[in-house]
Amino acid sequence: MVEKHLQRFSQTLQTNKPMATHDLEEAAGQSHGRDGGQNSSQWVLESPAPPGIFKATVDSLKESFSLRNYTRRPGLELLESVFPVLSWAKGYRIGMFKKDLMAGLTLASLCIPQSIGYATLANLDPQYGLYTSVIPPLIYAAMGTSREMAIGPVAVVSLLISSMVQKLQDPSANPVAFRNLVLTTTLFAGIFQAGFGMFRLGFLVDFLSHAAIVGFMAGAAIVIGLQQLKGLLGISHFTNKTDVVSVAGAIWKAVHQSWNPYNFILGSAFLCFILITRFVGRKYKKLFWLAAVSPLISVVASTLIVYLTKADEHGVKIIKHIKGGLNPSSVHQLQLNDPHLGEVVKIGLVVAVIALTEAIAVGRSFSTMKGYNIDGNKEMVAIGFMNIVGSFTSCYVATGSFSRSAVNFSAGCETAVSNVVMAVTVILCLELFTKLLYYTPMAILASIILSALPGLIDLHEAVKIWRIDKLDFLACLGAFLGVLFASVEIGLLVAVGISFVKIILISIQPGAEILGRIPGTEVFCDVHQYPMAIETPPALTIRVKSGLLCFANANFVKEKILKLATEVDEKSDKVNGRRNIQLVVLDLSNLMNIDVSGIASLEELHKNLISKGVELAICNPRWEVIHKLKVANFVSKLGGKVFLTVGEAIDACLSAKVMAVI
Amino acid sequence: MVEKHLQRFSQTLQTNKPMATHDLEEAAGQSHGRDGGQNSSQWVLESPAPPGIFKATVDSLKESFSLRNYTRRPGLELLESVFPVLSWAKGYRIGMFKKDLMAGLTLASLCIPQSIGYATLANLDPQYGLYTSVIPPLIYAAMGTSREMAIGPVAVVSLLISSMVQKLQDPSANPVAFRNLVLTTTLFAGIFQAGFGMFRLGFLVDFLSHAAIVGFMAGAAIVIGLQQLKGLLGISHFTNKTDVVSVAGAIWKAVHQSWNPYNFILGSAFLCFILITRFVGRKYKKLFWLAAVSPLISVVASTLIVYLTKADEHGVKIIKHIKGGLNPSSVHQLQLNDPHLGEVVKIGLVVAVIALTEAIAVGRSFSTMKGYNIDGNKEMVAIGFMNIVGSFTSCYVATGSFSRSAVNFSAGCETAVSNVVMAVTVILCLELFTKLLYYTPMAILASIILSALPGLIDLHEAVKIWRIDKLDFLACLGAFLGVLFASVEIGLLVAVGISFVKIILISIQPGAEILGRIPGTEVFCDVHQYPMAIETPPALTIRVKSGLLCFANANFVKEKILKLATEVDEKSDKVNGRRNIQLVVLDLSNLMNIDVSGIASLEELHKNLISKGVELAICNPRWEVIHKLKVANFVSKLGGKVFLTVGEAIDACLSAKVMAVI
Repeated sequence: MVEKHLQRFSQTLQTNKPMATHDLEEAAGQSHGRDGGQNSSQWVLESPAPPGIFKATVDSLKESFSLRNYTRRPGLELLESVFPVLSWAKGYRIGMFKKDLMAGLTLASLCIPQSIGYATLANLDPQYGLYTSVIPPLIYAAMGTSREMAIGPVAVVSLLISSMVQKLQDPSANPVAFRNLVLTTTLFAGIFQAGFGMFRLGFLVDFLSHAAIVGFMAGAAIVIGLQQLKGLLGISHFTNKTDVVSVAGAIWKAVHQSWNPYNFILGSAFLCFILITRFVGRKYKKLFWLAAVSPLISVVASTLIVYLTKADEHGVKIIKHIKGGLNPSSVHQLQLNDPHLGEVVKIGLVVAVIALTEAIAVGRSFSTMKGYNIDGNKEMVAIGFMNIVGSFTSCYVATGSFSRSAVNFSAGCETAVSNVVMAVTVILCLELFTKLLYYTPMAILASIILSALPGLIDLHEAVKIWRIDKLDFLACLGAFLGVLFASVEIGLLVAVGISFVKIILISIQPGAEILGRIPGTEVFCDVHQYPMAIETPPALTIRVKSGLLCFANANFVKEKILKLATEVDEKSDKVNGRRNIQLVVLDLSNLMNIDVSGIASLEELHKNLISKGVELAICNPRWEVIHKLKVANFVSKLGGKVFLTVGEAIDACLSAKVMAVI
Repeated sequence: MVEKHLQRFSQTLQTNKPMATHDLEEAAGQSHGRDGGQNSSQWVLESPAPPGIFKATVDSLKESFSLRNYTRRPGLELLESVFPVLSWAKGYRIGMFKKDLMAGLTLASLCIPQSIGYATLANLDPQYGLYTSVIPPLIYAAMGTSREMAIGPVAVVSLLISSMVQKLQDPSANPVAFRNLVLTTTLFAGIFQAGFGMFRLGFLVDFLSHAAIVGFMAGAAIVIGLQQLKGLLGISHFTNKTDVVSVAGAIWKAVHQSWNPYNFILGSAFLCFILITRFVGRKYKKLFWLAAVSPLISVVASTLIVYLTKADEHGVKIIKHIKGGLNPSSVHQLQLNDPHLGEVVKIGLVVAVIALTEAIAVGRSFSTMKGYNIDGNKEMVAIGFMNIVGSFTSCYVATGSFSRSAVNFSAGCETAVSNVVMAVTVILCLELFTKLLYYTPMAILASIILSALPGLIDLHEAVKIWRIDKLDFLACLGAFLGVLFASVEIGLLVAVGISFVKIILISIQPGAEILGRIPGTEVFCDVHQYPMAIETPPALTIRVKSGLLCFANANFVKEKILKLATEVDEKSDKVNGRRNIQLVVLDLSNLMNIDVSGIASLEELHKNLISKGVELAICNPRWEVIHKLKVANFVSKLGGKVFLTVGEAIDACLSAKVMAVI
């Protein structure tokens, strides 16, 4: 209590500024709350040493490998963990199967035309899309943990794989070699995905920020849409490039040379039909199945129309031959000695990440809706494994489709059995009905793909991102424009690049803010954020505005603090005619970490303030920070002026000064 | 007060854990300190909007350009700011000149042999080193703000420029073309340096972390030392590469073929002499001049020995011809149309940064010692300008030398006039004494350079870095090994790369820690750092252990918080036989910023906790964070449970619960 009075004495002694009455009241009121304050400096200085970097790394590895420690009991439990079907199959009831059957059939009606469309988008024969809707869903049903995810080819991955692989091998020149490279890419994508899951590297997928994905998806949707104009307009010669400028040029050229209006009329008519049914389905929730089956209806109707009117003889392009029969083996088509193998591995990595990103996003959003957890790492193993097996059975990269999963969810699926039903339906189609697709016009495939694209463009989300975070929006825009005007990979690179530059910028953003006491409390806050906070001369409290004091910002932060101290001093100079700052309290509570340069600049700051006759105290340093400051001897240079709270620092230092004066 | 009692009632009601008596006391004691607490939630929510990103950018630009707003009065003041000599020349006294004269002469005696040596290290004729010690020091004396910095060629920059330029042009094949490229590089280095200063980009120099510089310098010293073995052993054919393996190979080969023991004996003898005088000078501070003049003595003595014994006829390599006379113009030798211009500009940038780093480090360390400030940006303009002019007058890149500045300081220099004295002395040497250097043995130059190297290797600092920060040490080691085993540029790249990866790793390092109340206070701290802190069930307080909640770590942090909550719940389960966590208070005080993904994961966390019957409250969000949370509607989803301090959050939420029960 003696110290307390001395402090108040010193304040009135050393400043001419009249103390606000509530300051006095507050000082009296708080003396009680600071009973244990005497020891707090010791507490800060005598905290146990934080775990070293090696121990921390080992601990964090241990932790991440035991997030779900599924090997408590080996044997059955391990098996159940790899094949979750074993655990949920026991509780499977006939009532659930009825729902899954309906959902699976609805899914198949949407999946068959989409698969054929996406295969053409990937520059593969139509049957490869159907193959990809057979094996991967069956494997996922056994290994996956999401109940709603509909597995199969998706638009963005199809575009990505075709645009990247065709740089190695022209699909029109040698379609077989191109296909073999696509299958090899699928193998590596699967290996990467399974590897990520097994080594608990699931967090790697998080490295594509949400904003970047929104931009990327929108850009990809537009690129895919432009590609579909080839089918819609019945153009024969088209560009291999995916950027807007090349595609627009190719279409411009084609429109002036040779295009067939019948294709366009047929395609547009059915596109309108699909969009209208989608609109109706969204308005009347009970009619959602109309939207789901409308692509199949379009295929059947348009095929009939072409067959009956013999439109194919008038320039309407048709699918012609689709090879029937189940997935053939493709083990011998994998090109592991290809000269482009390095490139193929790289493409596999990119495709793996994008496919996982979409799948995890799909899985998470539906699991959150239904209130269960999906295990990201286990999902990755399942998806990776299904793609590895897929690459042996003529499938290209499959993943969870957003649009089809939504249909699956709306159709009331209960478990992954709906995927099995869908796969069986596709098998039947492959065995029996491929010949019926002979007259299906290409324009219909284009309109089915086109109709799925609006779902990829999320304007609402882009607006939200803009409102919340301008730099995030920049990443979003960068990804969008990169995909649109350069290429899919460049769009991705731009987005990842901007995201990480943003992290660096924010982390090393130098700054310092003045804190003031909230009246009636012991709480010190930023005086700009809380205008009611009051500065406490002759002590100036400054908080570092960064999570990291390191080589890149330490010097700037030091300058900023000195500048703040000088400014405040000059201001009080003018008001009172004499110097007012005697103590700078540096609140380090924000600081996650500090490096050698950071400590050096704190030392320079200390020297500099001392030379001006101003004391420096630090308060509330975190574990790593105080440990490093101790090791570097900064604490002893500071004369042990380390405190737990700002209030204590001010009390202790100012009362010590008064003691010295007396 | 009613709330207070209700809260205590609820605590005893809902937990079986006996409340420590001091908890009760504390609760009673603190009720006073929280008078204004009722409004604090409003204060947090109604804080003014933070400045937008555009305004913030403009403000920070404004600020950085007016750090020293030197154009308050135009005219003379501007002139004085560009040429600080104008302001300090007025106060220059004859007593100061005496000191500067002595310091300048001492400096010259060290500078002349070093300059010749560094020129040979840079693969240039010896006189170019002398030229570089004439014009740049004169310009720096007029424009620089450091009083101690000794300007001229330095070892690391000489190595860097020669090793990088000789990739474009072999110096032994076409020495004139090589020299022209070096001069052109000097021009661009100067332009970059001046540009950095003018556009206030001084912080760019900070991007080379202290640890990286320590490693880089040590590596460069070893590489330079190995290069000197060529001179010391009198080897004629040597490798152009700088990595240890190539150099060791070349020496091995040379030693087995042709080397001359006389060179080695002469060089080693004088190296010992220089090192002994250095040791003596360090022990007896008054004899420091002995260390400073010993290189000159060595040159004179060895030249005499060679001349008298005619050792050059017995294989001792000598300098032979040094072109006398003042710096010739080199304006017409600048190769601005060279096909390698792009490369030259890049080399210029690297050299500019390294040279600035050394100069700023030198300037800062001596100004801190003498207690005055140097302006980094003004220094850069001065150094840049002196190199631009240097490139017109046959000088290669000059900067502040560490070893010579130390000698200048020890010799008692007062102002930059010592640099002028040195330059004048070098001019005299160039005009009169170059012929006397005909018989100077090359081995002596090598031993002079070798003797300067130990100052570049700072083992003590490396040990300190290891003790303070293991990752910093990794950057240091990376730079060291990179320079040693790959090349100078790769060493730099490795160091910068590791430094930035470290920033990213620390910034997105995911984590969360449990906070407990320090007994007798309202302060909540990490329970691991402060073992006396006590957790406060049924409320669990968790602080995010990261400065940034973004796409790269948000999901992990969310999982970690859920895991902590579950663990604590299970633990209390075992102890008490019932669930214990009813409220999770998330302390966001660390969080500098949050992005869209971060907000999304907070929303998921909230949903997840709600589904388990646990409430979520957040406290002490910073300005940007609360603003974004408001914009994203998270605050309203949270039901406004936003508080200023952890204590308030616990009180408010738990008493509200009890109210609801009653």
